Amino acid sequence: IEENNTQELKATMEPLHPADIAEVMDDLTIDEAKSVYLLLDGEKASDVLIEIPENDRRRFLNVLPPELIASKFIEYMDSDDAADIVADLDEDLKQEVLREIEDTEQAGDIVDLLEYEEDTAGGIMAKELVSVNENWTVATCLKEISKQAEEVDEIYYIYVTDDQQRLKGVLSLKKLILNSTNTKISNLYEPDVKMVRTNTRQEEVAEIMDKYDLVAIPVIDDIGRLKGRITFDDVIDFVREEAERDYQMISGITGDVEPDDKPWELIRARFPWLLVGLLGGIMGALVLGSYESEISHVTELAFFIPLIAAMAGNVGVQSSSIVVQSIASGVKDVETTGKRLLKELMVSFATAAIFAILIFIYNYFVQGNINLTLSVSISLFIVMLYASFFGTLIPLLLNRLKIDPALATGPFITTMNDILGLFIYFGVGKMFFDFL
Amino acid sequence: IEENNTQELKATMEPLHPADIAEVMDDLTIDEAKSVYLLLDGEKASDVLIEIPENDRRRFLNVLPPELIASKFIEYMDSDDAADIVADLDEDLKQEVLREIEDTEQAGDIVDLLEYEEDTAGGIMAKELVSVNENWTVATCLKEISKQAEEVDEIYYIYVTDDQQRLKGVLSLKKLILNSTNTKISNLYEPDVKMVRTNTRQEEVAEIMDKYDLVAIPVIDDIGRLKGRITFDDVIDFVREEAERDYQMISGITGDVEPDDKPWELIRARFPWLLVGLLGGIMGALVLGSYESEISHVTELAFFIPLIAAMAGNVGVQSSSIVVQSIASGVKDVETTGKRLLKELMVSFATAAIFAILIFIYNYFVQGNINLTLSVSISLFIVMLYASFFGTLIPLLLNRLKIDPALATGPFITTMNDILGLFIYFGVGKMFFDFL
Repeated sequence: IEENNTQELKATMEPLHPADIAEVMDDLTIDEAKSVYLLLDGEKASDVLIEIPENDRRRFLNVLPPELIASKFIEYMDSDDAADIVADLDEDLKQEVLREIEDTEQAGDIVDLLEYEEDTAGGIMAKELVSVNENWTVATCLKEISKQAEEVDEIYYIYVTDDQQRLKGVLSLKKLILNSTNTKISNLYEPDVKMVRTNTRQEEVAEIMDKYDLVAIPVIDDIGRLKGRITFDDVIDFVREEAERDYQMISGITGDVEPDDKPWELIRARFPWLLVGLLGGIMGALVLGSYESEISHVTELAFFIPLIAAMAGNVGVQSSSIVVQSIASGVKDVETTGKRLLKELMVSFATAAIFAILIFIYNYFVQGNINLTLSVSISLFIVMLYASFFGTLIPLLLNRLKIDPALATGPFITTMNDILGLFIYFGVGKMFFDFL
Repeated sequence: IEENNTQELKATMEPLHPADIAEVMDDLTIDEAKSVYLLLDGEKASDVLIEIPENDRRRFLNVLPPELIASKFIEYMDSDDAADIVADLDEDLKQEVLREIEDTEQAGDIVDLLEYEEDTAGGIMAKELVSVNENWTVATCLKEISKQAEEVDEIYYIYVTDDQQRLKGVLSLKKLILNSTNTKISNLYEPDVKMVRTNTRQEEVAEIMDKYDLVAIPVIDDIGRLKGRITFDDVIDFVREEAERDYQMISGITGDVEPDDKPWELIRARFPWLLVGLLGGIMGALVLGSYESEISHVTELAFFIPLIAAMAGNVGVQSSSIVVQSIASGVKDVETTGKRLLKELMVSFATAAIFAILIFIYNYFVQGNINLTLSVSISLFIVMLYASFFGTLIPLLLNRLKIDPALATGPFITTMNDILGLFIYFGVGKMFFDFL
């Protein structure tokens, strides 16, 4: 692909969509990618830049001169993308790039957006939108829209404001087209509009847009002035990222990795939770070591160690993942914490009883040793009960403490359950065999 | 809420959004819900019906008379929602409802849509869209749009077709507004448009719309005729559902459950994987039983059973979840199966070596027994190596066989890894202690 045949390369890329070019660039070295960029015209180069993964983008931008970043990329971008990219730059470079932006209005928009917290509506909204005054007529609107529309890729909704820029409602293009040109906007617009504030949390924005199937939502400040809008593609990205994060948490992986990453990145992502597993295993060994005489007297007790550990782990993960998923999907406060724990207790009581009986039947007929049979059944019952109880309680607690509840699904809880499970198992076992 | 004060109730619900009413209805009994429905006018009642969970909807509809379903709900719905609802009805009721629909064009649309497979573009598309002929002028278009727009909630794009209804391109409302009324459409439309076929799989539709940030995508048949369109809200729902399914798979839960479900539904969802865990535990006990004399001679060997099992499980889940997630996010064929396995082998070799050394250091200084130390380290190394190898291989194989690869992340593989891990551990241990 890289034979310095620039003319031909340029011609090949012309008809491609930015997202496709970004995919191809992913396989190139940084120098190759740089030379490909310089071939693209500004509009396309900036679209491609938005599509490439964040890490690559940061590495790439930090080697470019600031005036090039400003003139080649930023100037062609919507304010939300531009702000994201500027926010990622090193502090020095950031200041220089901002100074190099020729369009002062755009530079001002970017600086405004950088003020908002990253995970709020203000942090993800774009300044570009089409707004009209409620006192205008359809004809004035159409003229005004044709001016504003140049900066906006897709219109979706037209926002109607009063003289103080306060949001009054929305107007669909459909309505605008279907009405005569001298109708006043105030008679046409829909005043009942869903909106969010600049400080609304990203999760909540996504929930609202998803619930009401909105393609875009307006963002207002504390006194109701229209500040920007958020579009559906941000919501899709957010839903996907949240799901991926929870998934990686439950599978014991730290950070955002893909199979295409470099081997050492994959090793680093796995290391922390494996270390937790190792430490848990060592603690397990210490617990078992303290029951050394029991194990050497009744070797059969050791046989059911994997069973107890596996059931404790499985039940715990099931319980916490149900809670985590319901928190993530926004089902909250439908039931109180206490009520939920009570139901979980009922469910786990029944489940634990079923499995305690199953293993009792197996052991009674196959193993024959009544003390072992009773020890395994009773401790399995207790272990499953507390494992699902903790599995429910801990994510709920973490959520209360504003810590990501998905942490509870990681190997940490499983490991803790394993160790506690061993304690209970040998505690019960010791009791039964001491009775003899 | 339910004091038969119908007038008041009706007034309360008037300003509410259908999604909110659906949420309230969720807490009512089926009879209460039925009486609330009959208070709502048709448009609203049908919107609410779309928002309530599928199971509740099915139960509710199957007790209503067919002519009521047709006149009160179906007639006000878009064809895609109507088809979904009709598809859910029992066969007899389905036929009757279809016969009761007065608008024969709509009935025809529904029957057409029912022909497509549920998980294809045809199965999720709606028939309602705005299309214009390439030979028309802007003025004709505007007139035609005002006719068609009545049936379409949101326009998003105007599709341009030729005389044979073949899709030629799209036209934005923006362009339509900004051009003079006698311009011909053929000079305005954008011919380079992303589209899918009726038999394109749902996953692929979601990928394309997400990748190119499309708010709607047209669906064509094999000879290019425009058949319908799919909108962004279907994609958000799909992304969310896919993520939830994978998450439930990895956490060992069968079927779609939420904490608000009834206790017995929660028990049933947990049962299958816990049973796998129980059977695995019993097999583990059998494996350990076959090493009874080794355990009773060298009790310390038993101490590290939880460590080996936990590390095998953790590594296996990490490996398979990375593969599953990359398959789900559409990163495919970037690397071949062979290449991926080779890299996974490298990564797991390094990881296994690190942890084997760590446990060696611990045991060497704390435990002191050199045979035990070597047994644990060497078997941990082997176990981690094969667990991550299988963790990568099995989801890739399942995917080849068109089985959901997420199945590999469930407790099945973890359980298998546990058992194999015990075999390897005691095999290695036996070797070392026999040497003495």
